[in-house]
This record gives sequence, structure tokens and C-alpha cells, in this order.
Amino acid sequence: VFQRCRLITLLTDFGLDDAYVGVMKGVILRINPDIRVVDLTHAVPPQQILAGAFILCNAVGFFPDGTIHLAVVDPGVGSARRPILIETDRGLLVGPDNGVLCPAAAVMGRRHARVLANEELFLHPVSHTFHGRDVFAPAAAHLACGVTPEKVGPVLDAIVELQLPVPRRNGAAIAGEVVHVDRFGNLVTNISADALPRFPARQVCVSISTTPIGTLLATYSAAAEGAPLALLGSWGTVEIAVRNGSAAKMFAAGPGTPVTVVVESRDA
Amino acid sequence: VFQRCRLITLLTDFGLDDAYVGVMKGVILRINPDIRVVDLTHAVPPQQILAGAFILCNAVGFFPDGTIHLAVVDPGVGSARRPILIETDRGLLVGPDNGVLCPAAAVMGRRHARVLANEELFLHPVSHTFHGRDVFAPAAAHLACGVTPEKVGPVLDAIVELQLPVPRRNGAAIAGEVVHVDRFGNLVTNISADALPRFPARQVCVSISTTPIGTLLATYSAAAEGAPLALLGSWGTVEIAVRNGSAAKMFAAGPGTPVTVVVESRDA
Amino acid sequence: VFQRCRLITLLTDFGLDDAYVGVMKGVILRINPDIRVVDLTHAVPPQQILAGAFILCNAVGFFPDGTIHLAVVDPGVGSARRPILIETDRGLLVGPDNGVLCPAAAVMGRRHARVLANEELFLHPVSHTFHGRDVFAPAAAHLACGVTPEKVGPVLDAIVELQLPVPRRNGAAIAGEVVHVDRFGNLVTNISADALPRFPARQVCVSISTTPIGTLLATYSAAAEGAPLALLGSWGTVEIAVRNGSAAKMFAAGPGTPVTVVVESRDA
Repeated sequence: VFQRCRLITLLTDFGLDDAYVGVMKGVILRINPDIRVVDLTHAVPPQQILAGAFILCNAVGFFPDGTIHLAVVDPGVGSARRPILIETDRGLLVGPDNGVLCPAAAVMGRRHARVLANEELFLHPVSHTFHGRDVFAPAAAHLACGVTPEKVGPVLDAIVELQLPVPRRNGAAIAGEVVHVDRFGNLVTNISADALPRFPARQVCVSISTTPIGTLLATYSAAAEGAPLALLGSWGTVEIAVRNGSAAKMFAAGPGTPVTVVVESRDA
Repeated sequence: VFQRCRLITLLTDFGLDDAYVGVMKGVILRINPDIRVVDLTHAVPPQQILAGAFILCNAVGFFPDGTIHLAVVDPGVGSARRPILIETDRGLLVGPDNGVLCPAAAVMGRRHARVLANEELFLHPVSHTFHGRDVFAPAAAHLACGVTPEKVGPVLDAIVELQLPVPRRNGAAIAGEVVHVDRFGNLVTNISADALPRFPARQVCVSISTTPIGTLLATYSAAAEGAPLALLGSWGTVEIAVRNGSAAKMFAAGPGTPVTVVVESRDA
Repeated sequence: VFQRCRLITLLTDFGLDDAYVGVMKGVILRINPDIRVVDLTHAVPPQQILAGAFILCNAVGFFPDGTIHLAVVDPGVGSARRPILIETDRGLLVGPDNGVLCPAAAVMGRRHARVLANEELFLHPVSHTFHGRDVFAPAAAHLACGVTPEKVGPVLDAIVELQLPVPRRNGAAIAGEVVHVDRFGNLVTNISADALPRFPARQVCVSISTTPIGTLLATYSAAAEGAPLALLGSWGTVEIAVRNGSAAKMFAAGPGTPVTVVVESRDA
């Protein structure tokens, strides 16, 4: 469907203190030194599948069609959990069958999943502890070089599904939650702009736990220095921030903290 | 003036825990997958324009002519602050109009600045929170592909200026300050080697706050294990270090801590 | 022996908070913008030569033949310690003559070492504090572009040697130690799988300090949640882990902590 692409992205919970990520790149470049590799992040909290899935699904839309996204947050490495590939309208996803790929697959137009069964594509001997290096990286590299998904393994009837938490609607109120804290201490929620009236933004009231923040502002700098604010953030969802400060600290908040938006009237 | 170059460097305060940086690379590679991207650092302390400006101006001299340096330390994102481009003798600088680009522009031979006005070069819809992704990265990518600065926007009469702190001369004493602490706890100052007599180096006495350190040594290893020393550091300025230790800890020092160099006589 | 390769890996103790690493890449790309650069890690603890040597020697086997590995953990920078190049059967190693390259050279089939003597290959003026930028990066880049080792400098009779700690055999017991703690708190030891009977793995008993852990399991997920286990890790050695937890924390262990494997009988 799309032209052959040699771009692979990497998302893991391996950190950058060891050479785990560097070694995955070595394996990829040994298969084809022309492949481009881009790091999404390697700082997913260890074994936090949901956190990895969230970051991945927000990032994939900004890459060229045909990109191969490799995600390794894999507490079940070496067990019976399967290594999989998901074909989508916009590219391929490679990783463990534990749900980490699913939200991204939905964003990219999911078609079907395959098990990585063709052991000729692996690095041998395959360890029980590091499939990022021995299974996923070489499979992704071969796919980047034109090996077709059919040659990787058969289609699966079902995979492990995972859904990011969805806000509940309750009359004029939308009850969501914090799903991510970024480096600035901004609290990213799961309440999408699509769920809110377009104009005027001020007819909305955002609260975190039981603390009202106010309406949606346009920019961080529209708040006073050190003051909290709500706005539409970089991933198209409601975000709670503190101007030149940390909302995570001010509200002692993190993933799971409830956030409510009350819509005061429908669009003007 | 220089041959077309496809190298873009990135400096931000985004950290590497999120996919912000990875997504900027996706946007760049979607415009042209052949562009090379090099990270300068993404660990500028959040919203510390001066710290970002210091790192950038020290780094640019080591890159090929024609490199495009993209710097996003941008507390005013989404406000009236303008996105700009600075043309220099040695390449282009792209970022917010808050001064972060200015010291690097001076090093590179500043010509003139332009506002990024041509919205055709942006990623739409342009968010109010992430111009690194929506404005700066795509503009830099188009410039790397041969779009000329004239097509980006008109020349500006004035931009927000920023100067790194300059040492004061007081007879035989030069009064400077710490401007950066590196990973080793080395204290980088703003006192340039050019301000000092060439020979003999021992006719100089360096102090931090009121503590004398002594003369300039040639290397870290010229001091005893655990002892403090002063030397000319990697960016051509006086640096205070501790052999296999941290000067920042030993002197409880950081940006702004005063450092004095007394020149005991003129060059021999 | 191997085709010309334009891949350089970097391992340093510079961290990513400064632009030290970015500047080394600038120097490399100014010599040849087509060179590929891969980061192994920049988080080697400051000036810990042994830690850097361990990571490097585990990583090199996964890169293409002909790769140039550049390692800068260099407390003696600027002193009389020599900058060297080691030629091996599988590629080149570049760095300071302090032992950091030696374990990797052994893995890659060491041939001979040369001093980096040809100052035409350096970046001038050569600082006393940052040979990563001024000596090692440009030398590696010129080697990646086809400059032959002979042109870099003469063969050395002897270099500073360094050996990773080797386990002692004591009848049925192998006395080794922790040599590395990874991000997950897994304790990587120096007891190689080659030293152990192949089947059945259960005839082995692993202890850390005086605490018995049990036999070798196949995967992390074979242990109960929060329980400790021993297994063969990603680098082919015995590793002590905690399922979805940190063995480093549970056992207050780190490099040097003794680990013993008692082999209960010879291979069936």
C-alpha cells in the first residue's frame, strides 16, 4: 500500500544507562546499515504496559506512512506470551502480545495481527530475557528491508487487547483522569477536545479531584506566574498545568487522579 | 553561501521521558527522510532560556557549515512571542524569539532575523502548546530541503536580545561567575582564556566566592585525588573542578557563584 | 579484511545533560556527513573504567564487522596517558590507554594496538580536557572514511591491560560476583553459562552473599510476583532478579557482591 520505508521507531522501558538500546540498533544495522532508527522514549516506567501504550499511540500519527514501530515493554519475556506484528493502514507495529501495541494500532487503522513465527528472522541463540534484541529488532529490520508480513507468520484470530481508560459522561459532566505526567509536571488527561464544545471555551469548568481550576485557557502564558490552569495540550486532550511550575507537585497528582470537566452550555 | 546541508541539531528542555523529541523527529523525517538529526541535549532545565543559550552557543562551532540548529526552550509558547529564524555566516538558527538563539547567532556571524510567517510550512492544526512539533520542526525540515529563508518570512527590525553574563575587569582582577555545572560537577565560568595572560599561567590566581583555588593547572590529573583545581576547560573558559570529584558539591556552587581571577603580572 | 564501514558507536561517561556528546557527533559529521553514529550509553558512572569496559565488551558482538567503537571514560585526559587504537578481527576500538577497551578487544579478536600519533587527524587546538572531541572523535571519523590504521600511528609493544573480575572455581562451587546492576535492578554476574552444566539446570544452586536463591529458572515470569530468582541473563551469564521488582534493592547488592553457584552434579 505504501512505498517501502526504512524507518523504525523504538519505545522501551530499558532506560539509557545500559547498552540494551544500543545493542538493538546494532542488530538492526547489521541486517541493513541503511535503516533509519528513531527513539521515541526508553524511559517508560519498568514494565508499565499502559504507560508505554499511551506514549506510543500519541506518537505514531506524526511519522511517515510505512514506519515500523517497535515497542518493548515486556514483563512476560521468555514466557508463553507471543511476539506479534500488527498490520495497519499506516504502517507496522512489532512487539509482545500484551496489549502495548493496541491503542497505537487503533489510531493507525488496525487490520490484522500475526505471530512472529519464522525463526529464520531471529538472532540465534534466542535468549529468554531479551527478545528486544533477539526477536523484535531483527524481525523489524527484515520487515524494513522488504520481507512481507506473510513471511513473518500466520494471522492470529485474537490477541491480548488493552484499552486506555475512557472518560465517563454524566449529564453535563465528563469524568476522566490523569493518564500521564510529563517532564514539566503537566497532567495529561484522557478527556479529548472532541468531547468538548468548540466555542466559547470559557463555558467549560475543569476540576482536579475536588479542586476547581477554571475554564480552558489558550496557552500556558495566559495564566499568572505560578498559577494553575487548564488548556488543550499537545495530544489534543485537556491538560492541567502550572505556569512555569509543576501541576503534579501542586496537586500531588499522577496517573489515575480524577479530572472532571463540566460543560456549562452547548456551543453558542 | 554554503552547499545545501541536511543536518538539523535539536536542543530542548523536553527531557527524554516523553516522546516529544521523537515526535519532532517524525515530523522532520515525514518531510524528508534523508535529513540527519543530531541531539545536542534535551536536558536544559525547564524554561531556563539562559542555560539553553549557553549550551547552544558553545556547541554550534563544532558543526558543519550550513547546519540548521533548532532550539526550543519556550515558556511563552502559544503567546504573542514570535517564532523566528536567524541567518548567520555559518548556518541557520530556528526557535522562539526569546533570546535563546542570540549568543549562538553571535558566534556564527549573525546577519538578520526573520519571522516564521509562512504557515504553509507548519504542521496543521498548530497547537498552542507544542510549537517544537508544529512550527519549528517542520520549518527547519523545509529549510533543510532547500526552501530559502525569503520564503519563510520577512526580515525583522528587532528581536528579543539576550547576552550571557560578561565578566567585569577591575584592575588586575577579573570578576566573573559560574555559568554552567556539568555532569561531573565541574564549574564552567564565563572568564575566557582570551582575557588571561598567555604565559606563564602560574601568574594567575583563581578564587571561588572567597576561597582561593590557586593558579591554572594544565589537566584534571595534575591535581591530587580529591583536591580542587582551576584549569582552562572544554569551552575555552576558566573551569573549577575537583580531581575525580565534584566541585559543585565541594563549594556548594552553581550558576551565579562569583569566580575571580587575579592576574599577578602581565605576559612575560 | 572487512568492507569499509561507516558506523561508529559511542560510549562515554559524559551524560546527556550537556552537549558533550552532541559536539562529538558534530565533529564526526563535519569530517563526513554520511557516517552513522550509534550511542551505546553515556551513563557510565563518572570515571568508572571497569563499568565502561563491561558494557562495551558485552555490546560489541552485536554490531556489524568493521564497526569503529569509540569509548571515552578518561579520568587521565590531558595527562601522559596515550590515546590509542586497537585493531581486531572484527573492527576497531578507539579510546584512552587505560584498559577500558581491553575486554572488548578480547571479544573481538585482538591483534595489535597503535598510538594515535598523527596530529593531522585531530581537531586543533587540542584541549587538555576534552579529547573525546579533539582527538578520539576526529580520529574515528577519519578511520571510518578509509584512513588506514598505519596512517594513525605506530604499533605499541604494550598497553595498559584490564581484566574484568573472573570467578574462582572451588570444587563444586563457582565463586563469582555482581559486575553490573541494570535499570530494572537485575544483578548481572560474571559467572558465564559456559561454566555451568547444560542439563538439567535444576542441579545448580545459586546464592547471593549467604542467601540461597535456588536453581536457574528459564524466565523472569517463572518466579512468583515479587519473588527473587536466578536465570541466565541477556549477556550469557548468571543473573539474579526479582519478578517485577528490584534485586538490587531486595539484597542491597551491587558490583562486588559475592554470588556463588554450587553445581550439584555433572551433566546427566
